[in-house]
Amino acid sequence: MLNSVTNCFLCCDNPFDRADTVLFGAPFDGTVSYRPGARFGPQAIRNESWGIESYSPVLDKDLQDIRVCDGGDLDLPFGDVPAALDAIEAQTEEILQAGKLPLLLGGEHLVTLPAVKAAARQYPDLHIIHFDAHADLRQDYLGVGLSHACVLRRCWEILGDGRIFQFAIRSGDREEFRFARAGHTRMQTQDFQGLDEVLRHLQGKPVYFTCDLDVLDPAVFPGTGTPEAGGVSFPQLAQAVYQVAAGAQVVAADITELSPPYDSGGISVMAACKLLRELLLALHCHQ
Amino acid sequence: MLNSVTNCFLCCDNPFDRADTVLFGAPFDGTVSYRPGARFGPQAIRNESWGIESYSPVLDKDLQDIRVCDGGDLDLPFGDVPAALDAIEAQTEEILQAGKLPLLLGGEHLVTLPAVKAAARQYPDLHIIHFDAHADLRQDYLGVGLSHACVLRRCWEILGDGRIFQFAIRSGDREEFRFARAGHTRMQTQDFQGLDEVLRHLQGKPVYFTCDLDVLDPAVFPGTGTPEAGGVSFPQLAQAVYQVAAGAQVVAADITELSPPYDSGGISVMAACKLLRELLLALHCHQ
Amino acid sequence: MLNSVTNCFLCCDNPFDRADTVLFGAPFDGTVSYRPGARFGPQAIRNESWGIESYSPVLDKDLQDIRVCDGGDLDLPFGDVPAALDAIEAQTEEILQAGKLPLLLGGEHLVTLPAVKAAARQYPDLHIIHFDAHADLRQDYLGVGLSHACVLRRCWEILGDGRIFQFAIRSGDREEFRFARAGHTRMQTQDFQGLDEVLRHLQGKPVYFTCDLDVLDPAVFPGTGTPEAGGVSFPQLAQAVYQVAAGAQVVAADITELSPPYDSGGISVMAACKLLRELLLALHCHQ
Amino acid sequence: MLNSVTNCFLCCDNPFDRADTVLFGAPFDGTVSYRPGARFGPQAIRNESWGIESYSPVLDKDLQDIRVCDGGDLDLPFGDVPAALDAIEAQTEEILQAGKLPLLLGGEHLVTLPAVKAAARQYPDLHIIHFDAHADLRQDYLGVGLSHACVLRRCWEILGDGRIFQFAIRSGDREEFRFARAGHTRMQTQDFQGLDEVLRHLQGKPVYFTCDLDVLDPAVFPGTGTPEAGGVSFPQLAQAVYQVAAGAQVVAADITELSPPYDSGGISVMAACKLLRELLLALHCHQ
Amino acid sequence: MLNSVTNCFLCCDNPFDRADTVLFGAPFDGTVSYRPGARFGPQAIRNESWGIESYSPVLDKDLQDIRVCDGGDLDLPFGDVPAALDAIEAQTEEILQAGKLPLLLGGEHLVTLPAVKAAARQYPDLHIIHFDAHADLRQDYLGVGLSHACVLRRCWEILGDGRIFQFAIRSGDREEFRFARAGHTRMQTQDFQGLDEVLRHLQGKPVYFTCDLDVLDPAVFPGTGTPEAGGVSFPQLAQAVYQVAAGAQVVAADITELSPPYDSGGISVMAACKLLRELLLALHCHQ
Amino acid sequence: MLNSVTNCFLCCDNPFDRADTVLFGAPFDGTVSYRPGARFGPQAIRNESWGIESYSPVLDKDLQDIRVCDGGDLDLPFGDVPAALDAIEAQTEEILQAGKLPLLLGGEHLVTLPAVKAAARQYPDLHIIHFDAHADLRQDYLGVGLSHACVLRRCWEILGDGRIFQFAIRSGDREEFRFARAGHTRMQTQDFQGLDEVLRHLQGKPVYFTCDLDVLDPAVFPGTGTPEAGGVSFPQLAQAVYQVAAGAQVVAADITELSPPYDSGGISVMAACKLLRELLLALHCHQ
Repeated sequence: MLNSVTNCFLCCDNPFDRADTVLFGAPFDGTVSYRPGARFGPQAIRNESWGIESYSPVLDKDLQDIRVCDGGDLDLPFGDVPAALDAIEAQTEEILQAGKLPLLLGGEHLVTLPAVKAAARQYPDLHIIHFDAHADLRQDYLGVGLSHACVLRRCWEILGDGRIFQFAIRSGDREEFRFARAGHTRMQTQDFQGLDEVLRHLQGKPVYFTCDLDVLDPAVFPGTGTPEAGGVSFPQLAQAVYQVAAGAQVVAADITELSPPYDSGGISVMAACKLLRELLLALHCHQ
Repeated sequence: MLNSVTNCFLCCDNPFDRADTVLFGAPFDGTVSYRPGARFGPQAIRNESWGIESYSPVLDKDLQDIRVCDGGDLDLPFGDVPAALDAIEAQTEEILQAGKLPLLLGGEHLVTLPAVKAAARQYPDLHIIHFDAHADLRQDYLGVGLSHACVLRRCWEILGDGRIFQFAIRSGDREEFRFARAGHTRMQTQDFQGLDEVLRHLQGKPVYFTCDLDVLDPAVFPGTGTPEAGGVSFPQLAQAVYQVAAGAQVVAADITELSPPYDSGGISVMAACKLLRELLLALHCHQ
Repeated sequence: MLNSVTNCFLCCDNPFDRADTVLFGAPFDGTVSYRPGARFGPQAIRNESWGIESYSPVLDKDLQDIRVCDGGDLDLPFGDVPAALDAIEAQTEEILQAGKLPLLLGGEHLVTLPAVKAAARQYPDLHIIHFDAHADLRQDYLGVGLSHACVLRRCWEILGDGRIFQFAIRSGDREEFRFARAGHTRMQTQDFQGLDEVLRHLQGKPVYFTCDLDVLDPAVFPGTGTPEAGGVSFPQLAQAVYQVAAGAQVVAADITELSPPYDSGGISVMAACKLLRELLLALHCHQ
Repeated sequence: MLNSVTNCFLCCDNPFDRADTVLFGAPFDGTVSYRPGARFGPQAIRNESWGIESYSPVLDKDLQDIRVCDGGDLDLPFGDVPAALDAIEAQTEEILQAGKLPLLLGGEHLVTLPAVKAAARQYPDLHIIHFDAHADLRQDYLGVGLSHACVLRRCWEILGDGRIFQFAIRSGDREEFRFARAGHTRMQTQDFQGLDEVLRHLQGKPVYFTCDLDVLDPAVFPGTGTPEAGGVSFPQLAQAVYQVAAGAQVVAADITELSPPYDSGGISVMAACKLLRELLLALHCHQ
Repeated sequence: MLNSVTNCFLCCDNPFDRADTVLFGAPFDGTVSYRPGARFGPQAIRNESWGIESYSPVLDKDLQDIRVCDGGDLDLPFGDVPAALDAIEAQTEEILQAGKLPLLLGGEHLVTLPAVKAAARQYPDLHIIHFDAHADLRQDYLGVGLSHACVLRRCWEILGDGRIFQFAIRSGDREEFRFARAGHTRMQTQDFQGLDEVLRHLQGKPVYFTCDLDVLDPAVFPGTGTPEAGGVSFPQLAQAVYQVAAGAQVVAADITELSPPYDSGGISVMAACKLLRELLLALHCHQ
Repeated sequence: MLNSVTNCFLCCDNPFDRADTVLFGAPFDGTVSYRPGARFGPQAIRNESWGIESYSPVLDKDLQDIRVCDGGDLDLPFGDVPAALDAIEAQTEEILQAGKLPLLLGGEHLVTLPAVKAAARQYPDLHIIHFDAHADLRQDYLGVGLSHACVLRRCWEILGDGRIFQFAIRSGDREEFRFARAGHTRMQTQDFQGLDEVLRHLQGKPVYFTCDLDVLDPAVFPGTGTPEAGGVSFPQLAQAVYQVAAGAQVVAADITELSPPYDSGGISVMAACKLLRELLLALHCHQ
């Protein structure tokens, strides 16, 4: 009669071995410059997930139809950034080597770096599709290179020009936009225009999909470290996620920057849960 | 010099006998599965209503021009669901038998069931127009049939096929959507497309209009028990309400699922107040 | 490297069979008359428990030294009070029959009733020690007998006069205080005076210990359904708990009425966690 | 079956003519220097009062036993301080002239000034007992004399030396404390020591009792405009209120400075409600 | 190594003499009728401004490129409305006479009145472009003429017919809309249609631009005194601001009605910061 | 007429050269294990300090009488713990070498370590008086030695046995208490008993005074990273601070662990402000 004390995202309680996709959390916010709290993101997503259904009427699919393992959260040390990143990298690698798709729940956006490192080792031709409010292309932030504000720049150092495709960017300093305009990345500001064309271009290429949830408008998603006015709506983001899942060969993915202490009314975590469900189902439709 | 301690929605202080429309509150949230608090909805609407005007610039009408009685809240027992529903049914019946339009303020969505029962007795040919994020068509919820998640299914058991017209639905389990697609109800997902056609179809038929406020996007309306990302905007909902008021013969109505404890910044209650004002004025324009 | 997704109170992850004490949650708040939300209490206690230590410097004991199983939460139906109570009774009985001590986490205070029923069947000579702000001795509340405001009255109907010992009571209606003064229960208002004497009197008798956390001052414990000014301090409550654990033969216990939506600053859940740890360790010292 | 929409403090619904005591609210916070919001105080007290009982176990009295009229709130203009104060003065006078005891609910502390003016006209030998965290003895505040920080100074200008008895004061500027030490008022800092002696001294004298609720510790009463660490506990304040009610001839009274927007967890309004109940009952015991 | 304790909006730390534009705050909310708190607006904008960049990707300009002085806040008396307004008028005049553009940060909307007075003395042919949810054209509000609800009416008394251009108005009483329709102001309800035409009409005329931030939808901007459902989006407002800055000869401007105590999740202050940055940069592009 | 944009703690605007005491902030929370946010502490203390007076009635002293410089906050990198600690150490050293008393505002408690390092270089015979809820004596925390949970252990490694005097400790793991009992530090649990004796023992010795504000009860001080039930009251803490200031030769001091995002009702920051004022004034009385 008792529930087990197991605590998954919805019904994603498949054992690792039987799963196609492995969720795991990286409760890390050690380089957040404005409002910390993203460390509480993965657990909030699990706790609140029972407030939505496991079924998507848009996709006419249910999480019960697919095989996802929610592996829980990594135990990350506080105050030791390199050690935390190493743990994320090792975990991503383990999942990739088992032939499964890793889906990382941040935490702040810097968690993308080690996951990309692991994926690039497995898939040397890796490309990145990046949804975000912020360009994240700084060379350093207050002298620190391993910062959430620099994460795509660090990824670019690994992958090089022409590999990173940024969408809906609406904030950054002048240098970041110059860097993109110089051709190091392809950047679409404000919205998702051109996504179809990019997806055609990436046909057959392995793709890492990283979604910083602050791409959403702060009205829809206040619970984040650096809210930036003027973002996209939830249906716009969901539509873009469907496009990526249908049109790209996604080999790893992440969703980052939910910060529950700033989640007024608890609407941000519900948006994150629904987006995660749609991403899982949409990826499955095209595997 | 003292205000009386009377506490109405805006200036809706007409005595019952002189009113065309009778507002009353059903402070009930006994079957809410996720976040309770809708019990505080009707009183919050009254308390905060003085933050808006009694005049609608869209309709160029003022509540002072029409005759509404705010009858206050029912005294409902906590923990005895059938007794609470009976009290709502009796009150609705009393208003209908006096030849007035009952406008019920929830409370959770289950309060619609007894009001529909009373209205269906008075108007055997009753039809329902239903705005909501959720289909509410479950057979039961965790073994309980009298649940907010089942309320339209219970209504269907009373009215039968072809009587229920659902709009802007964006959540439910697979069975609920199958039930609708099987023709038991007419369901429009995500938005209000087809509302005009439905209204033409319902010409001359008595209509119960039920509006679960979580049909609004959680950005606009965070203060609700089960926020579901991706809802309609306030102007979209207001427009649809104007259409219903103009195009249907509404004999009873409700507005449900405002949950003040989750109303970040107090914006949800203000949206509910404005929608209620517009509904009252729009219904009056066409009586 | 991954945490399991198991989610216990601190390190209370012993299997049922190896445990002396079994924690379980009853996420029920269906009869709460003022502010609902106690349904979220047990899960909040688990989630936040890692903010405290497993070691008590006062008792010089650690939860790692003792054998507690956290069995998780019961799956309770919303809106069907008798069914929920039956599930709690059955679970309590199962634990008692396995020779273990059940420790129930509410939920609202009505959850005590089915646990007392189960315990009284096992121990016909059962006595109750009751810490609370409220007398909970009403005959009914708005016509409903199965209400959190009546729970000790219902227990009295089972056990009879001279079995219930109430402490720190500071609220109730006139009839409740008359009922106690008439000798049906022994009631100490405001504080814990006389607890030692009561414990001597109960020597050798089986005791059910129920602690409604609103006995604490609202400053210390704002996160509760019915805060009542003028309560006891945390050290006063902890001291009384040590006395009960040392001086009574506790056969079952509960901690109730944490309501996380009203827990400003998250201090109430931390107080609940610490009290639960101290209760578990103190009971063990004397088993 | 419907509740009337009347909205009183608990059961204080006696008509003016049959009442001994008349409650009324002055929703005014126009001179608050730090955190405004006290305007919402009186309505919050009414709305939340049903969360406590009408019976006091300490006094063994019930509000149903006594005759209190809750007259509602004054309609005060925003931004016109003198007009607001005039309205309060007129209302207080009307109640006094009807031979009833006015009990004013603030609003900020400046509302005391017009009530004292009215009372001093009726009772030229008026004395004041003042409970507060702040001395409120400034000559002016940022050049403004009609300020909550100056209210007792303004009262002193009306009544003169030896008439004002201040207790539990723990904040002010150097000049305010010098003013008190110079003998213009009798001031007890930090606590209520000497209250008995003062009450003996005031035997037979008419007393205005003013209680700024920020005299309570901010832990107990966070919902106030100027929280000041280190205040008294609720039982200490209640005890002092019982002493005043029993030992002084109170002819008018007020309770001020509840600011609901800062009331974390809703505990401040509950403390205000309970104190108001105890004050009403205690005053009645000795009329 | 220490930061200075200087606290500006972003990098707007130019000395007065070297600046083209002078920001200053008027922390005044003395006539707010519903929810006070706008007094905290200017300081919140400064404190939180480091959460956004100084660079605008839309305008490709950086605040470091232009010369803005943030002069801090005026010291305004609480409870003396005329004195507060005089101080704002004098400060605006000083900036205008120094040949600089004053940019006033409210505070409530009444602060616009003294700034318009000062600007109209300097520019007798002054016109006003007004973005707001509310018409603010009342003759008086509860008998008070110096009220935020009357501010544009007071401005009209100074400037006369044909000088005030209102956009996106969605609330007011019947008289206010009649007043506008009678030709005293030109009012566009709900949105910014016709702004281009107005700007052509105002070619060469000095313009005071006043932006009440509650023109934004409450979802985007909950932190305001009188949230009104159904407002414009941030991109819509930013676009209109760009149009005004490019098409009008703005001689003074203000941004008002941010109320931080109601800013759920801190998103309103971030929106205000971004809008202020865009306004400063856009005005500079066309100076 | 404008305020300067300087933003100090109250009136502590003396230039460095003329000051006896130099306040500075270390907005660092990079190793916080539970709830981050202490980075916002120093700025919150400055922003809200105008809610209290500069005068202490207990000490009969005013900050205007003494010479304190508020030097603002250090610019600390996010995500680089050693660099942040180095900056704090350098700043502390600079102040000490100028012959002034450094008073550091955290930030989390780890900021004490670099300040102690600097002070121990200047005063090799340095002793520490430590007020805290937590022992902070761990060897490491999740493998990290530079953690707020280990800070006193790190200090002990610098100073050795017999130099650290801990008071009011009520939490830690078993090893930490064993470490203290083994004589490495002198630890008083729960309260300040024995403080006088310790102060006599430290006569003539240089003392670093570190106060983790979570020593206060969470009711009084909810705004902290790791609230622990059962702490001391504000008057108890203030009294102990007066004793330390009067009885010890304090050469440097800090106040840490205010975390504004969790400061319900804003009472924690006000308590921190008042304690800081009392500490500054009390230290000055005895310099």
